[in-house]
Amino acid sequence: MNSVTLQSPLDMHIHFRQDEMLRRVAPLSALHFAGGVIMPNLLPPVDTVERLLWYTQEVREALNGAPFQPYMTMFFRDYTERELAEAKPHMLGIKLYPAGATTNSDGGVQEIRSMHHVFAMMEEMQIPLLVHGETHGFVMDREREFCEVYRHLATTFPRLRITMEHITTQDAVALLDEFENLFATVTPHHLIITLDDVVGGMMNPHLFCKPIAKRPEDRDALLDAALKAHHKLMLGSDSAPHPRSKKECPGCAAGVFTAPIQLPLLAELFNKHGALSNLQAFVSDNARRIYNVTPPERTITLSNTAMTIPESYAQDVVPMWAGRTIGWSVVS
Amino acid sequence: MNSVTLQSPLDMHIHFRQDEMLRRVAPLSALHFAGGVIMPNLLPPVDTVERLLWYTQEVREALNGAPFQPYMTMFFRDYTERELAEAKPHMLGIKLYPAGATTNSDGGVQEIRSMHHVFAMMEEMQIPLLVHGETHGFVMDREREFCEVYRHLATTFPRLRITMEHITTQDAVALLDEFENLFATVTPHHLIITLDDVVGGMMNPHLFCKPIAKRPEDRDALLDAALKAHHKLMLGSDSAPHPRSKKECPGCAAGVFTAPIQLPLLAELFNKHGALSNLQAFVSDNARRIYNVTPPERTITLSNTAMTIPESYAQDVVPMWAGRTIGWSVVS
Repeated sequence: MNSVTLQSPLDMHIHFRQDEMLRRVAPLSALHFAGGVIMPNLLPPVDTVERLLWYTQEVREALNGAPFQPYMTMFFRDYTERELAEAKPHMLGIKLYPAGATTNSDGGVQEIRSMHHVFAMMEEMQIPLLVHGETHGFVMDREREFCEVYRHLATTFPRLRITMEHITTQDAVALLDEFENLFATVTPHHLIITLDDVVGGMMNPHLFCKPIAKRPEDRDALLDAALKAHHKLMLGSDSAPHPRSKKECPGCAAGVFTAPIQLPLLAELFNKHGALSNLQAFVSDNARRIYNVTPPERTITLSNTAMTIPESYAQDVVPMWAGRTIGWSVVS
Repeated sequence: MNSVTLQSPLDMHIHFRQDEMLRRVAPLSALHFAGGVIMPNLLPPVDTVERLLWYTQEVREALNGAPFQPYMTMFFRDYTERELAEAKPHMLGIKLYPAGATTNSDGGVQEIRSMHHVFAMMEEMQIPLLVHGETHGFVMDREREFCEVYRHLATTFPRLRITMEHITTQDAVALLDEFENLFATVTPHHLIITLDDVVGGMMNPHLFCKPIAKRPEDRDALLDAALKAHHKLMLGSDSAPHPRSKKECPGCAAGVFTAPIQLPLLAELFNKHGALSNLQAFVSDNARRIYNVTPPERTITLSNTAMTIPESYAQDVVPMWAGRTIGWSVVS
């Protein structure tokens, strides 16, 4: 029997949604995690202090006392200094979406350079900037093209802490070593799949997400950085629940649901590559250090005990690899 | 009012399937076309003379007297000279599938070089070779990688007439001018869409096909060749019916259904680019010359009269752009 015990795992990129979906999926993240970063792309987005406090309360109610610390975020817009000052104690950072880049992002930023004054205030106030880094170019090029924006922001605002969210390319991995103030999250699925898994055989809507899975060499670069627990890289699942009816349809929504299965997936993956000893840093320590957070104390133990991934969670949310049996599971 | 009249359009790559689906879709190709090439990837494949004659009869019955000439094909395997001689009068050519490359191709070729003796016989007997040209590599690279196989075949068998079916890359377009004995079909959808249309916004299973739509520069190269009616390029829709339940599901089958809408799509496209005068060559004359066939005389007239693409055909086959209104339609 092989096993690993993790101290207070953190999922640094989660979509909890709202209302009934929130109440169904928040407890699934709380099963295995001591905390996580909650994304603000609701309709309308979380972009006022009032709405931030309201959403925090909604999330806390959905968690129903579970030992899970939600790290809240606000949706980037042209905030005033006063708004930022008021919001800062209640959030981890501000999430920037290029307009239209993903789910509920139509109200996102049209032109990065027109927002320099906001970045400058965030830098001064030490508010982290979390970024969905995709241009509006060809789908396979969007993140690579956006690396120029990362370079621009990292250079122009050298004390602004910038997290490249859910990176998918070797280009983004390379930026981690190029700029001191660039950090990143990566999803479990982008460590495992490529575009081949999405559209290379049968097309699988449950592996469709944004940014889309890329080439094998991209996946390999991400995996290499994760397995060695690159000190600027954190687990962020981007777990994004959609009901089956929004996935198995002519206009399939973007998002892969992995919240309750990602630790088993990762334990199996890290074990396979002989890197189990680096899992703690990847799923918790790096995030604690990067964001200077102290999550609730929790201990999660996984072992090489097979589990079959359920066909659905939260009534009708189909997870990644539904029905497939994997080699590891959470045992306590 | 703008219009174009086409003489005996030909669709040089069609999937008619069998049984009930055959009876539903064959008449839809016969609506606007004077003939077409019928693919042999049934289960089991059409790979004996007996099965070829049986399938020909099935197709004729499904066409029910419509003025449509089905040009039949056989599924490539290690045929004897006698088999080829017997089959030749009853078919247009032999279709080669790399094993597992697409729908019902598990029985395809494992190793091209082990089949040189068959290619040599086909060359000698002047039987055209039709090829699904994809390797088993990364999905965006498969056709480009297969170009080496096309080069090898074209060079080794200079008198073998080879059609690169449903080409999707600028690399394949370039081969047309490099080797005298290479020809190609291209689908209407690959002249219009890129991977962005499949997975760049919402994911659209009804635009998922093999080979998958590629990059904008690939689409542009295909379109350029089609608009000028490159003399070695033919319309071949690869129209591939699947019931909705096989498309809007976790394992979506590959295939775009365009049989009854492709001429309106093409008329609108060619008109938009000022190339309406080249449409006749692209949809008929090139194929007649390349294969030396004389289809039934038919006249199809299209004009810039809007039509709304039906939500489904053949009971529950969803076509490309279902529900969308396009600017051209068949008027007589």
